[in-house]
Amino acid sequence: MKIVLFLLVSLFTCTQYVHSLVAQETLRDIYHDITQNIVSESLKDSVCYNRLAEMCDTYGSRLSGSKSLEQSIDWIIKVMKQDGFDSVWTEPVKVPHWVRGKESLEMISPRKHSLQLLGLGGTISTPANGLTGEIVAVKSFAELAEKAAEVKGKIVLFNVPFTTYGETVQYRVNGAVQAAKYGAIASLVRSVGSMSLYTPHTGAMYYNDSVPKIPHAAITSEDADMLDRMYQRKTKTIVQLILKNEKLPDADSRNVLAEIKGSEKPDEIVVFGGHIDSWDVGQGAMDDGGGCFISWEALRIIKKLGLKPKRTMRVVFWTNEENGLAGGKAYAKAHAHEIEKHVLAIESDAGTFKPKGFECTGNESNLALAREMSVLLGSIDATIIQEGGGGADIGPLIEKGVPGMELLVEESKYFRYHHTNADTMDKLNPYELNLCSAAMAIMAYIGADMPKKLSGKK
Amino acid sequence: MKIVLFLLVSLFTCTQYVHSLVAQETLRDIYHDITQNIVSESLKDSVCYNRLAEMCDTYGSRLSGSKSLEQSIDWIIKVMKQDGFDSVWTEPVKVPHWVRGKESLEMISPRKHSLQLLGLGGTISTPANGLTGEIVAVKSFAELAEKAAEVKGKIVLFNVPFTTYGETVQYRVNGAVQAAKYGAIASLVRSVGSMSLYTPHTGAMYYNDSVPKIPHAAITSEDADMLDRMYQRKTKTIVQLILKNEKLPDADSRNVLAEIKGSEKPDEIVVFGGHIDSWDVGQGAMDDGGGCFISWEALRIIKKLGLKPKRTMRVVFWTNEENGLAGGKAYAKAHAHEIEKHVLAIESDAGTFKPKGFECTGNESNLALAREMSVLLGSIDATIIQEGGGGADIGPLIEKGVPGMELLVEESKYFRYHHTNADTMDKLNPYELNLCSAAMAIMAYIGADMPKKLSGKK
Repeated sequence: MKIVLFLLVSLFTCTQYVHSLVAQETLRDIYHDITQNIVSESLKDSVCYNRLAEMCDTYGSRLSGSKSLEQSIDWIIKVMKQDGFDSVWTEPVKVPHWVRGKESLEMISPRKHSLQLLGLGGTISTPANGLTGEIVAVKSFAELAEKAAEVKGKIVLFNVPFTTYGETVQYRVNGAVQAAKYGAIASLVRSVGSMSLYTPHTGAMYYNDSVPKIPHAAITSEDADMLDRMYQRKTKTIVQLILKNEKLPDADSRNVLAEIKGSEKPDEIVVFGGHIDSWDVGQGAMDDGGGCFISWEALRIIKKLGLKPKRTMRVVFWTNEENGLAGGKAYAKAHAHEIEKHVLAIESDAGTFKPKGFECTGNESNLALAREMSVLLGSIDATIIQEGGGGADIGPLIEKGVPGMELLVEESKYFRYHHTNADTMDKLNPYELNLCSAAMAIMAYIGADMPKKLSGKK
Repeated sequence: MKIVLFLLVSLFTCTQYVHSLVAQETLRDIYHDITQNIVSESLKDSVCYNRLAEMCDTYGSRLSGSKSLEQSIDWIIKVMKQDGFDSVWTEPVKVPHWVRGKESLEMISPRKHSLQLLGLGGTISTPANGLTGEIVAVKSFAELAEKAAEVKGKIVLFNVPFTTYGETVQYRVNGAVQAAKYGAIASLVRSVGSMSLYTPHTGAMYYNDSVPKIPHAAITSEDADMLDRMYQRKTKTIVQLILKNEKLPDADSRNVLAEIKGSEKPDEIVVFGGHIDSWDVGQGAMDDGGGCFISWEALRIIKKLGLKPKRTMRVVFWTNEENGLAGGKAYAKAHAHEIEKHVLAIESDAGTFKPKGFECTGNESNLALAREMSVLLGSIDATIIQEGGGGADIGPLIEKGVPGMELLVEESKYFRYHHTNADTMDKLNPYELNLCSAAMAIMAYIGADMPKKLSGKK
């Protein structure tokens, strides 16, 4: 009896011990070997870079409504289907269709001189023979207000040097409305970029119905400074602006989706991706071809390694992020019935340079769990977790309570290339794309497989 | 008598001692206070920057043969005459007159796409409807030779990444001749620059009579890489090149000269300056407006401080450095009678960023004297003296035995902007221009005033 009692007590103690071990098993314990395999597989070749380059070179930039966007999507679908995912499909999205036409900016006086420009996305056209007016240069909306009396009938130049994107972009977005308030006939904005080699940056701009719509275009920082110096020198500078754009009826586009079904909880979903549309300049390589293709590559690696996540991993290439966000909204609408089953949404739209970690929505306990996940990113030195993560395309999901993350990358170069002809493949490299793919694969896989779930709650 | 003898011996000893002191007086001893005054005066205001900006903004780029070059020279003469120099004058120079016309590069197949380009200075035009051909991309002249059989009737692209200017510029200068050897109908060159934000760089190119002349243009590194990737992928890429340039009869231009006459040896001359012409892009602010205006400013400071150098200090703005060197040659010819009286020639044509010191021609003892001079540049941290210094415009003088120097500046940015639309005032700043002015003023003044002379001998 004593022996039986001893054995029973021993058994109980031992079971408790094992149980405590299991309970304490960390994400690192569970996923260490898997993530090392993901990293090794990611770094093996240049599939991600080569695919992105082939699409960018073959079809060009991908503005919503363009033939090249839809050709790119067709090509993606064709190649994606070769990767053996459980499913690859598209979902229809109506997108704005704004087309850049002939555009020019000529200095008429004090000398004849052509200036580089990019009409901003959505700007109205000028009359066919252009608008001719004198430049009034300002450095803020406050200065514009001070110069109210001077602005009427003239062309306002917002020459605001880049500080942060958030601070500076308001002149691109709202410049036309503000200038029109005081009777300007057109507005120009110093390109929103952190560096310039005579490099205009396009981007979205908006009107409202309270003031007349006036044409709005971006010029290079070089010319903005020159016109500003001339204005400070009291040189009367007259320019002629011609913009011939077209606003056509909404066009048909598509979100692209690919999935590996969950082995245990297929109805629970980790969604991750980027936006497949771009502006109509450069190749949209960094913004956001890279974000899409590292997500695709992440799914390809999971598939190639034969990993079976418990939940479903779904890649989405949202369309029309740049000038409408129709893709992000359409996804949230089409998947409204399963939004509460989305356990995590990850977006990459800040470039695909060397990854540093992820931004993450939610409360402190959420960030703590994200930090536990990010330990697995140690070997690629991408363990930073910081609060944030409300990407544009996953915004509608986050609003409905889905936890969100955004890939964080080395940020020094993004705003040099953003919305310019310099957003091209040479700015990316296979190694950094592979690191981003690994980071995305690891975070999405753990999110889809781990026992706990992240929370969308603040 | 004993006392007299004692006094005489004492007097002799004392005189010898004083004499030895005088003999050992270094340049530092003589010029320390003067150079400190020069530095202080240089840093007082932004005259140099403001003058250069006003000229660049008012008249634009200054290609040889252009109206804007001559307008700029007129303006310079007018303002220079206000500075009270002993004389300000111009000397006539006949210069080449090549005019860029309409130019375009369109991808025809596999898709329609416009590529940015700059015809290289001196290139022939294409037929009016352009030249259409398939791209063959190479990375060296050796690879071109290997592909000899493939090149006939096609358009060669030299996609050679920038290493050093000297190494890479040969594809811009000699690309057309090499490509024509194998029957190419035109040639394109990846722009010779250390960085690109979709930035084409123009520059000089040459033909020889042994092979047919073919059109030659520069494209951006972004497009060069894209066309090269497409070529590697075996995508047949066809482009249409249109260049409509004009080679007009030689035009009238001028070298600009200003002088402070030497107080003791007015026939001995220190000449210093830069070239006033530029390419027909950007503002020619850095290349070489800056080099001219810091030299002018140096002379203005010497004048303002009331300094009277023993020898003559002469500033020269040479014309037509970029595509002919007619100004440098004309100066040497016009001043042939006094070339042996030139004790020093200093050029600034490597940008006017933070000065580091000077390159100097000649033998070791010459460099040793230059180093003694450069000690006076200690307070602005520009004391480096290194062998070199054969600037283009002072080349004809150096050939005749005149000692030469070239201002050395922080070099990381020069080839980003060189021969592009980004060579604009915003790339310079008043502080660095002032430091360059101080360095030029100090070196030229000491050269014009010191007891010894530099030697032109190797």
